[in-house]
Amino acid sequence: MGSEMGRLAIGVDLGGTQLRAALIDQNGTLLVRTAMATAATQGPEVVADQIRDAVATVSAGIDPPRLIGVGVCSPGPLDSLQGIVLNVATLTGFVNIPFRRMLQERIGMPVWLENDGIAAALGEWRYGAGQSVSNLVYITVSTGIGGGVVADGRLLRGRRGMAGHIGHMSIVRDGDRCDCGNPGCWEEYASGTRFARRARQRVQSDATTTLGKGDSPVDGRAVFAAATAGDPLAKSLVAEEADLLGAGIVNLLHLYSPELVIMGGGMSANFAQLHPGIAARIATCAMPPFRDTPVVRAVLGDNSGLVGAAATAFEAAKP
Amino acid sequence: MGSEMGRLAIGVDLGGTQLRAALIDQNGTLLVRTAMATAATQGPEVVADQIRDAVATVSAGIDPPRLIGVGVCSPGPLDSLQGIVLNVATLTGFVNIPFRRMLQERIGMPVWLENDGIAAALGEWRYGAGQSVSNLVYITVSTGIGGGVVADGRLLRGRRGMAGHIGHMSIVRDGDRCDCGNPGCWEEYASGTRFARRARQRVQSDATTTLGKGDSPVDGRAVFAAATAGDPLAKSLVAEEADLLGAGIVNLLHLYSPELVIMGGGMSANFAQLHPGIAARIATCAMPPFRDTPVVRAVLGDNSGLVGAAATAFEAAKP
Repeated sequence: MGSEMGRLAIGVDLGGTQLRAALIDQNGTLLVRTAMATAATQGPEVVADQIRDAVATVSAGIDPPRLIGVGVCSPGPLDSLQGIVLNVATLTGFVNIPFRRMLQERIGMPVWLENDGIAAALGEWRYGAGQSVSNLVYITVSTGIGGGVVADGRLLRGRRGMAGHIGHMSIVRDGDRCDCGNPGCWEEYASGTRFARRARQRVQSDATTTLGKGDSPVDGRAVFAAATAGDPLAKSLVAEEADLLGAGIVNLLHLYSPELVIMGGGMSANFAQLHPGIAARIATCAMPPFRDTPVVRAVLGDNSGLVGAAATAFEAAKP
Repeated sequence: MGSEMGRLAIGVDLGGTQLRAALIDQNGTLLVRTAMATAATQGPEVVADQIRDAVATVSAGIDPPRLIGVGVCSPGPLDSLQGIVLNVATLTGFVNIPFRRMLQERIGMPVWLENDGIAAALGEWRYGAGQSVSNLVYITVSTGIGGGVVADGRLLRGRRGMAGHIGHMSIVRDGDRCDCGNPGCWEEYASGTRFARRARQRVQSDATTTLGKGDSPVDGRAVFAAATAGDPLAKSLVAEEADLLGAGIVNLLHLYSPELVIMGGGMSANFAQLHPGIAARIATCAMPPFRDTPVVRAVLGDNSGLVGAAATAFEAAKP
């Protein structure tokens, strides 16, 4: 215990829009933080320089021996075992980049690279909704669908650390082609983006809905608000979204047998409205021994990536 | 090494039709075997007696200290951690049965209970096609679809040991309802049973095919034979089956990131005819970093359950 007291890690959440970094203690508490716009079009060298600077900012004045290193999470697919970014659609030039090595050279501390969904799963496991369990599936539903899996008391990694691309599980035979190339991906049907797009399409052919009749855009937030107000179209859109989420979750129950499913990401702001439909799908479609698995809302919210990235560092530095 | 030399396990493969048992050494070699019709309608007590007798038969004359115990595999879902059969549709009365305890009381040796798909995965990992890898997915395609997963050098178990019910992953939104209750399960579309049923349906409306024109039944074997002979309907049925198998396998690549996919079960007798279509689906639909994952045929064949069950015992008895 003694030598571990007070040790700190730096978490970095590298997104296509924003780059965030924070100094985080072993309880998952954010002590110092910074954020900047990601230089998304300027290539890996410039982004690596940004991360170096962000790390310097949040660790300024900290006694170096207290710092165990830097955990960086980014969209995948990436090879977390080798520290190689394989392909990030939203960051120019991030194809087969040995990003972990590039960062270590700049920062002079150990660096670990992790898929953002897996990092968030780890964050929720260590510091969030999943602290009491040995088996969980974390799902983030926002622009896309990502996630990570804890099984048998360990993070599920697989070859190159690429396990858990749960958004790219096809649930619709010959369905719409996902950006990844696979037809019918869960992400292509149940992400926040697709939910909003479906709403805009349905509004066109529905004369009775209040949605889209004023100046405000038809986005996810508007649909949930209209559903709360009793708008029939909005209610049916929310029910359909919940059913689509539930259908994917039933698959994940059968595939990973978690004790707990945790939902994060932007769409989880409306978890209370989605949960009944998700639970109904599980109650009718999961095999009986899987039906009692709870689905709960993530607790780390916007910070799941940051905290999870730091958790990656704490985990990797364990003796 | 010394104390482990020459140790033996008994594998039992409990199926709805046949009950098989074998004495197996640490190289996975079957030394003695027996088989009988399962008393499938007579309840767990009678079946447990059958297993006791089969174990006695294959272990007759063996010095007891050489025997580490008995591994029993059965259809799921079952709780392999507690040794409880939760529900086996093909065996009357097998609902929430503490079968491991019942067998231990009768046999007087340690008994381990495992899902047959997971046991076969372990068998292929230890003694079959997967000996060199740390991450694999084993798929058995026959009456249904089952399987098991090795991830990060360990068998994936999950809550109650119920992970890896890969046949009950829905791939068709609002599709045909599976026996398990879930609509659109992979098993409901790509099992050997469904392949044969699809063939019988298509034959009705196809005047040109040779299938079903003679006395021989339209079953899976007939379709593969007709496809080899160039029958267009049979060729299209095989291509569709391969594509359905490939679609499920693409999902499994994204979900578990195996180094290797191993296909066993009755349908794997026709692996050479199915493989091109499976590979084509992976090449077009898997995310690029997953496309080089090989799909190979299982090598243990009919004995995957028996050998896998014994492997379960060897694994569990490891210090």
